[in-house]
Order: sequence, then C-alpha cells, then structure tokens
Amino acid sequence: MSLIVVGSVAYDGVTTPAGKVDRMLGGACTYISLAASYFTPVSIVGVVGEDFAQQDVDLLAGRGIGLEGLERVPGKTFFWAGVYSEDMNDRETLTTDLNVFATFNPKLPESYRKAPYLMLGNIQPALQRSVRAQMEKPAIVGGDTMNYWIGSYRDELLATIREWDFLLINDSEARQLSGERSLIEAANVIRSMGPRLLVIKRGEYGATLFYPGGHFSVPGYLLKKLVDPTGAGDCFAGGFAGFLASQGVADVASADTATLARAVVYGSVMGSFCCECFGVDRFRSLTRDDVENRFQEFRQFTNF
Amino acid sequence: MSLIVVGSVAYDGVTTPAGKVDRMLGGACTYISLAASYFTPVSIVGVVGEDFAQQDVDLLAGRGIGLEGLERVPGKTFFWAGVYSEDMNDRETLTTDLNVFATFNPKLPESYRKAPYLMLGNIQPALQRSVRAQMEKPAIVGGDTMNYWIGSYRDELLATIREWDFLLINDSEARQLSGERSLIEAANVIRSMGPRLLVIKRGEYGATLFYPGGHFSVPGYLLKKLVDPTGAGDCFAGGFAGFLASQGVADVASADTATLARAVVYGSVMGSFCCECFGVDRFRSLTRDDVENRFQEFRQFTNF
Repeated sequence: MSLIVVGSVAYDGVTTPAGKVDRMLGGACTYISLAASYFTPVSIVGVVGEDFAQQDVDLLAGRGIGLEGLERVPGKTFFWAGVYSEDMNDRETLTTDLNVFATFNPKLPESYRKAPYLMLGNIQPALQRSVRAQMEKPAIVGGDTMNYWIGSYRDELLATIREWDFLLINDSEARQLSGERSLIEAANVIRSMGPRLLVIKRGEYGATLFYPGGHFSVPGYLLKKLVDPTGAGDCFAGGFAGFLASQGVADVASADTATLARAVVYGSVMGSFCCECFGVDRFRSLTRDDVENRFQEFRQFTNF
Repeated sequence: MSLIVVGSVAYDGVTTPAGKVDRMLGGACTYISLAASYFTPVSIVGVVGEDFAQQDVDLLAGRGIGLEGLERVPGKTFFWAGVYSEDMNDRETLTTDLNVFATFNPKLPESYRKAPYLMLGNIQPALQRSVRAQMEKPAIVGGDTMNYWIGSYRDELLATIREWDFLLINDSEARQLSGERSLIEAANVIRSMGPRLLVIKRGEYGATLFYPGGHFSVPGYLLKKLVDPTGAGDCFAGGFAGFLASQGVADVASADTATLARAVVYGSVMGSFCCECFGVDRFRSLTRDDVENRFQEFRQFTNF
C-alpha cells in the first residue's frame, strides 16, 4: 500500500577513500523513496531548483515513484559536500548550501492525504509535524531525526515524535535523546516519549529494533568493498517502511514481531546495497531478485 | 573432552564508570578457564606468586578446574591496573607489574599432553608455540593475540598461528594483521596464514566467525548495565573453545557449521555475563541454566 516520503532532495559532493564525485543526486527523500520503491508504491514530497536534471527526474519516475509532490521552484537545489574519514565512520561537512530547501514548507497534494503510510526524512521537527497534520488518518507514521534537532529543538522534536509510530535514529542520537548510556534503558525512555517502535541504526554493526515486550538485533552485512556510506541510513529507513507498507500492516500495535523483524532485515539489505556505489548508483541496476537474494544471505549468516 | 588453557593469572585494579576495585582476581587464563568450565573439563597452565590467595585457588578448584599446571613461585603475582573511558570502549593502563609472569615459561604437566583441546591465551607468541609443541596430538588448537605481538613480533606470531586451527582477535587487530580494511578481505588473508577458523570479536557489537566457505555473525547482547568489560574477550574465547570441546569436535575441517555457529553464540553468552560484574564476580553465582537461558535469549532476539 502507498507510502508517502517527505524530505530533502539534493545534490551531493562526496569524497571517500574509494574516490570522489563532485555532484550527484542525493538527499534523504531520494534515498528513502528509491529503497522503498522495491517494496511498495511510493510518492514523494520535496523541493528542487531549476538546476534539477531531467535524468534525475527520470531515475525516480523509472522506479515508479510518484512525483506530484516534488515542487520545482526558482533557484538552486540543496547542495551538500563532505569528506569521509579513512574508516568511513565519520565525515566532515565542507559545504551546505540550503538554496531552495531553506524555505521548504512541505504541502501534501490532495491525492496523498488518504495514504496509509508516512515516512518523514530528517528535516526540522515542526515541518515533520505539519506534514503529519495534513494526513487524514495514516495507519503508520514514522521518521528520522538527528543530533542537531535533538540538541537545539528538543521541545519541538518531542511534540513531533509523540505522534509517531516509529522512530529511526543511530545509537549516539538515542543516547543523546534519552540521556541513557545503555541502549535498553535508552529505548525505554524514548518509547515512553511516544513511538511504539524504535529502530537504532548502528552503521556497519547492524541495527536493533525495540518493540513492546522485546527487541530484535541484526548484525551488519559485511561488504567486500565499502564505496560510499552516504544515504545508507535513509535506504535502511526506506527498506523498513517500504516493507511494512507492502505487508499492509494496519497498525504497529497489531503487527507481529516476525514482520517487524523482517522489516529490519530488509532495511539492512537496502542500506548495504547503498554503500556499494557512490550515491544512488546501485539503484540503477538493482533488481527485486537481488534484494531477495541478499535477504536470504542474511538468514544464512545469522542462523544458528 | 578435556581443554587445556594457558595464559596469565593475575590481579587487576580496575576503574570503570560503574566503580573501582583496587585488587581482584584476573588474567586471561583465569577468565578463559572459568568460562570454559561451564562446558567441559578444563585444566590450566599459569604462574602465580606467593601472594596468590587461597580463596582464588578455591574459586577455580570449585569450578572443577585442574590446577596441576598452576605453578607457584617466589615473588608476586602479575598485577595490572587500568581505567576505562566513559563508554568503556577504551582503556588506559596505569600499572603493569609483570612480577613472576616476566619469566613465565609454560611447562605442561605430563597428564595434560594427551588432551585433545588447547586454548592459548594472549602471551608471547614463541611461548604459545612452545606449548603447542608439548602437546602430543591435539584435535584442535587455537588462541588469542594482541596488537603488540602483531606489530613487534610478527614473524614469531606468523610461525605460531600457522599451527593453529582457530584464531580469535578483535576487528582492529584483524585489520592490523592482514593490512586489509574490509573484514571479508582481512579474513581471507588471515585464514591463508594458517587458521582455518577466524573469530573476529567486536565488543558490544557482537562477533563474526569466518570458516571455509562462509561466515556467521551474531549481534552483541544488550546489557542493562555494563559494569566492567575486563575479561569479556577471554570469556568469549572460553565459551567458544569450551563448547567445541564439549561437542567432541574431532577437527575443525569436519565440524559442521551449526556447531561452529553455536560455539560463537556460547562465546557471546559468556562474554556478556562477564561484563555484568567486576572481574570474575559473575562466575561466583552463574549456573549452567543461566547460560542456557541466555543462549535461548540470543535465539529469540536474532531469529526472523
């Protein structure tokens, strides 16, 4: 069933130990929607400038992604550039030109408002909240955030995630948000803030889902060669939300834990593919069979 | 079947964010043998000084650990003291008094030489090699090492691990030993050095076993409260080697992957218990049922 994805659509300049690309399609909304498109119909809300290339529109459209909510306005598309550390676990931002994204005020097209699933990429919490308010009666709403909003927009963020069914963040963000070092304690605190499900992403080390009454952990996929981790967390989110939507889960309270666990594995699958090429390149050739084969690989290397 | 464990027996002074203990039983041989004793008969080879307390002898003996090879000599027992960082992923050494351990030259009692299993704790590679040479015809030999030996005793270390069936090291050591960043590539290089099995320990993030034709990963156990990580890697080794010994595995080439995977999970189980208290305190009350229950917990939180 249909998933609405909201967030940044951008151009990125990325340097990793594997190479350098000066300008390539990026942004959370882009990565989330591409990953989710392997599971369920997806429509996006975002904003781009006059420089947004037709080939990038074609890539998204070619994956069947609904673009009615992709606004094109005068000015330039959001541009970000950064350099990764040798082990790619850290990165330094070189450039952040918000451009048309500075005044992004997401408006859902009428046709989106009855959609059952909503995934909010990492943007200002008040904007995430306003999008949630534009939906009629979504079955499941979730999203991502980051250290900046946790630190400087805490009250807005708390008001926003109170209305969410799931929150996806990394381990340092979970510790920051909760004030707890132990992830179990952190999850208890965060889940008491609203989201029934908490997914803690741990980069190359895997991910853990906390649900009412337990948790599920999956180790990271061991890549032969890590090329570019940009967007991996967003692809995780796309796989996770896309799979839940594909299963028609009516609400997170009634979802069985096997379905939730499989959503985490599909998230991990999509994140792992993302890292194999620069930017979104892996999605130019990736097939649904590739996704399924890697899911089975996860089964093999975790089963005992 | 019987497992021989060789390594340091020590007193440690440890400071962690959870507290401080000035002097407590420690040492790789101690941790490995205590953990392995839950699975199989264990006998140790080590050296202590005149200050080694009867209550510590009693703890080991109480777990049924054979102490014929625990030499007591004039002088003081090896003493180490350190302070852990806030997240306990790093530690700083404050004191290393080798004392009687400085001249440790492990001699296997006659009764040990026919034992089928040998686990070599982290000591000078040439000493590990000499112990291996004293065994008649062990079914499985493996051990641990560390960055110092990899960096400064590389040739000795390579000659030593060439004769091993398994090597247990952490991810940074695997990268240092192999010169490869990707753990898959690192494992290929290291396994070509001799050990058919490589276990890469990743601390709180879990562990991965590389075997001929594949790998198996288990995520870390989420502790409610991490008290003291000292010895966790050694307890992992004890659980891993102890379980293999308990299954009477005739050689690693013929071991089925399910048995190997379960050995990794039992290693993780024992490492997780170790972190719940200072030093070896958890083993004063831990039962075989506790071990089995946690193994089942691992099944539950990894199954999908």
